[in-house]
Amino acid sequence: MTQQEPTCQVVRALDVIGEKWSLLIVRNALRGQTKFSEFQAQLGVSSDILTARLGTLVAAGVFIKEQYREPGGRERSCYHLTERGEGLRLVLAAMMQWSTEHNPAPHGGGSKVVDVEGAPLDVAFVDGAGRARAVDEARIVPGPASTWTPR
Amino acid sequence: MTQQEPTCQVVRALDVIGEKWSLLIVRNALRGQTKFSEFQAQLGVSSDILTARLGTLVAAGVFIKEQYREPGGRERSCYHLTERGEGLRLVLAAMMQWSTEHNPAPHGGGSKVVDVEGAPLDVAFVDGAGRARAVDEARIVPGPASTWTPR
Repeated sequence: MTQQEPTCQVVRALDVIGEKWSLLIVRNALRGQTKFSEFQAQLGVSSDILTARLGTLVAAGVFIKEQYREPGGRERSCYHLTERGEGLRLVLAAMMQWSTEHNPAPHGGGSKVVDVEGAPLDVAFVDGAGRARAVDEARIVPGPASTWTPR
Repeated sequence: MTQQEPTCQVVRALDVIGEKWSLLIVRNALRGQTKFSEFQAQLGVSSDILTARLGTLVAAGVFIKEQYREPGGRERSCYHLTERGEGLRLVLAAMMQWSTEHNPAPHGGGSKVVDVEGAPLDVAFVDGAGRARAVDEARIVPGPASTWTPR
């Protein structure tokens, strides 16, 4: 996909997180999971696919891979989000908010985003003064190296 | 994917926009494209795949499909974002921002998000008073119907 519009940030993001399972692996890491075995057990994904997706995410700098060994066990791999990976928290929260508003589960009650004191947080557009702005005030416009023109 | 964690909003969003090309079709619609032929020409995707993706997105209420006819031509289909589809602007803007911050193109210069007067807008977590909060203040926590527990 990158070849067609290499400066498009949506394309560049999808090149890293656009494969099936990738965002769910990041979601689970944001929930605190680190071990290959935890990801596999919770996602129910095959070992081969999980290895491939984690490899892509490590190569893209979303995770760093480390080794650990439990007493008496053999060496195993665990994965920690980098700052780049932590940055995906906002992308996942935006997706969660979209589902809550526009595609809620029949009985509701999904995950929530809160601050350290438990007060709810939303995802929004904000201006330079840090004030929330309405979604319909936002325009996506081409930058200097963009290859598209608005209609 | 839905079966494993049906209340998870990330899963619910990916069920709608998780297939390859889906988010790029929405991106192009946010740029003002509406015609099947425009999507196909700009994305370079096969007619079969584009038909399938648009069908999924119409069924999910992201687009409404309409017919139009140019003078002397036959009837053709065009697609307009619904309110639900327009809501994805925030998701795409969050992805764009992540790429700009963490995975920029070598020569930069991708698209920008601005308000009606051209002033730059960011995507951020905001509290109940509409004030931007730091990303690391946000916690994703399970809701009443969630089937996961934080570690």
